[in-house]
Amino acid sequence: MPTFQPVRGMRDLLPEDAETLNYIVCKARETAKCYGYKEVITPIVESYDLLSAKAGEEIRQRMFTFKDLGDRTVALRPEFTASIARLATTALKNEPKPLRVFSVGSVYRYDEPQRGRYREFWQSNCELIGAGTAEADAEMILLTNSFLKNVGLRNYAFKLGHIGVIRGILTEEGVDEKTQNSVLQLMDKKEYDEAFKLVKHESCRKILQGLLEQKGETGFETLKNMKYYVKGHEKAEAAVDNLLDILVLVTQSECPVENVEPAFARGLEYYTGVIFEVYIPELDIALGGGGRYDRLIESFGGAQTPATGVAHGLDRIAMAMQMQGVQVRTVEGKRLVVVSVNELMKVEALRIAERLRDAGLSVEFEVMGRKISKALEDADKRKVDYAVIVGKRELNEGKVVVRELHKREQTTVALEELADKIKGAT
Amino acid sequence: MPTFQPVRGMRDLLPEDAETLNYIVCKARETAKCYGYKEVITPIVESYDLLSAKAGEEIRQRMFTFKDLGDRTVALRPEFTASIARLATTALKNEPKPLRVFSVGSVYRYDEPQRGRYREFWQSNCELIGAGTAEADAEMILLTNSFLKNVGLRNYAFKLGHIGVIRGILTEEGVDEKTQNSVLQLMDKKEYDEAFKLVKHESCRKILQGLLEQKGETGFETLKNMKYYVKGHEKAEAAVDNLLDILVLVTQSECPVENVEPAFARGLEYYTGVIFEVYIPELDIALGGGGRYDRLIESFGGAQTPATGVAHGLDRIAMAMQMQGVQVRTVEGKRLVVVSVNELMKVEALRIAERLRDAGLSVEFEVMGRKISKALEDADKRKVDYAVIVGKRELNEGKVVVRELHKREQTTVALEELADKIKGAT
Repeated sequence: MPTFQPVRGMRDLLPEDAETLNYIVCKARETAKCYGYKEVITPIVESYDLLSAKAGEEIRQRMFTFKDLGDRTVALRPEFTASIARLATTALKNEPKPLRVFSVGSVYRYDEPQRGRYREFWQSNCELIGAGTAEADAEMILLTNSFLKNVGLRNYAFKLGHIGVIRGILTEEGVDEKTQNSVLQLMDKKEYDEAFKLVKHESCRKILQGLLEQKGETGFETLKNMKYYVKGHEKAEAAVDNLLDILVLVTQSECPVENVEPAFARGLEYYTGVIFEVYIPELDIALGGGGRYDRLIESFGGAQTPATGVAHGLDRIAMAMQMQGVQVRTVEGKRLVVVSVNELMKVEALRIAERLRDAGLSVEFEVMGRKISKALEDADKRKVDYAVIVGKRELNEGKVVVRELHKREQTTVALEELADKIKGAT
Repeated sequence: MPTFQPVRGMRDLLPEDAETLNYIVCKARETAKCYGYKEVITPIVESYDLLSAKAGEEIRQRMFTFKDLGDRTVALRPEFTASIARLATTALKNEPKPLRVFSVGSVYRYDEPQRGRYREFWQSNCELIGAGTAEADAEMILLTNSFLKNVGLRNYAFKLGHIGVIRGILTEEGVDEKTQNSVLQLMDKKEYDEAFKLVKHESCRKILQGLLEQKGETGFETLKNMKYYVKGHEKAEAAVDNLLDILVLVTQSECPVENVEPAFARGLEYYTGVIFEVYIPELDIALGGGGRYDRLIESFGGAQTPATGVAHGLDRIAMAMQMQGVQVRTVEGKRLVVVSVNELMKVEALRIAERLRDAGLSVEFEVMGRKISKALEDADKRKVDYAVIVGKRELNEGKVVVRELHKREQTTVALEELADKIKGAT
């Protein structure tokens, strides 16, 4: 029989990679708590209607969609925001605002697998619900800045934009919302020619084309150019002013901003305001991104509620750490193996192993029925620190033999001192 | 528009419940590490062929099965063991034995939802691969004992059995494996009459029926009865002896065993040896269970490899903790809110918030654009400990106002002493 493999696009995280992911998850959780966010856990399986409502065509087509045994059309979540918006209209409806909610877990998209892109991937996700201010948007960016700093990354920088600029122009030129969504989807893929073809009026098309050329040396310069360029388009102008407020807040808090993108768009359809992504120079895919979505909760049957959020790509952050040589710092305690000199001492040896575990030590028990020399050789090979050898003669005096494996030294230690001796040894 | 709800059988964990689950996950991880287990993370989506191979008819029919966009028949994992066995035949094939592997995450079964049973639920899972000894099986039980003790549960006890007893009798009486599987499935559901109807020979049927009556007051008494009863059935006798070895090991390590069940069966088809479950008196569903599966890895195309494992039901453990009034002990740091006295001080206030977060404090920033009195009132209501109020006059002297909210007392504190003062306050 041939062996089984993971399904295409899925992958296993072996111990080292799993440890890195867990480390990143811990840092994400610590950071979110530091900003006053509370964790919720929502299901991976949600109704297709919920997940597809505002995801945008691109993501909608790449969802893992199926019917459950009760004939419900369901899907694996491609992101967290829809689930959190659902909560904000139901179980968390009456919570005081602002509502700060955090989640971490796996999400699913049927993309073509490539380096740093899997069909099951990990995100941490923060949503700030009920606040429409620039401070709220700045918080999403600053929180992401803290998180990346906390995992040890360097030289990352944010790219900012504002959906309100393009939507503002299109709305004022009478382009309907559905066409706007298609234009933005294509602009997200940088297919500008295709995007602008959808815009009927040549005057409007020219405005958008010109927008692309407003990029300056810095975010502030770009915004100055944009402000001048969109003069007269009231909504677009307001969007530029809003982005300037946010840029001031984050740069003054020493958060690195690469630039403002005049024609920045993102795949998700629900954005209404600032959008952002963060990159390191070594990698051309974003480590995280987010933005403001002031109409999503209302469209899910809730009250009109401003909201902003961010998702962090944990697999990509792991990859970035590897590229920058960032070490995962975990405290590894001493490792022990407990062996009995013969079959008859097995029960006693196991009791001693249990006592050492109760004292917080990491203890393997010899379960292979091997000769003692073989067991010790194996433990030494795997860099176990100590072997505790349980024999009848020593145990009659309340003692065991402790062997420091790499030094090949051994001493006899009283049982009541055993845990402390091993913990105290340097 | 009506609001969205979770899909039937799925549920949201709001902050308090999410915190409890995370606490249990931490304890599971700590315990597994204490026994020398390393964590791996496998995909939730696996091939249907892998998951269905040895799951047993009952679970096979309740899997979330579907075709992905590449027309592959896949399913959401109903348990972890198949994925770990897959790893043991591929990526971890050449690891030294014994191989100790731990996982934690959600699993999926389309069961009728009821109290303590959801279609998405959480498990921690340990597998010990490569060891066929009684010590290896005892380790699964002792690890579970430690885990339940570590989360703070009381009065739980283990129920033990051995698949080798019934399979031994059926094999010797010439019953084929497929029929054996069906008999065991029905016995697991306690539908004994239906189960025994599948056994043709009356003599064999009578042996099985009589087996049910061998239960004594204690595990040791039951095993004594069983040993006498199955005399002459060589394989069944060996199974009873093996179970006695395991029972001695675990009871001598002060692990509470309720009894041995002479006709114990479990839903999964891959078990070959000892099986066990653990219960508290307050709840009639198992908090965890496992057993030996010596032929699974071979059937997946690997070498002949003895193995034993256990899965813990984390949602049920959370429910058990609630029933026994066990408190989740997490260290909650002090909570702060930072507010600026007016719009002009916003940038400065945000910088101060960031500095306090860098110092490890949990800081909310006022993002609602509210008047200061309103913001403080809200923070007090939500039991935030301190407000840091940033005003121009104090800041010109390098100071801010710190208000202890529940005491309604405030002092002026120099910026460089701010974090330490708040951390040090009692």
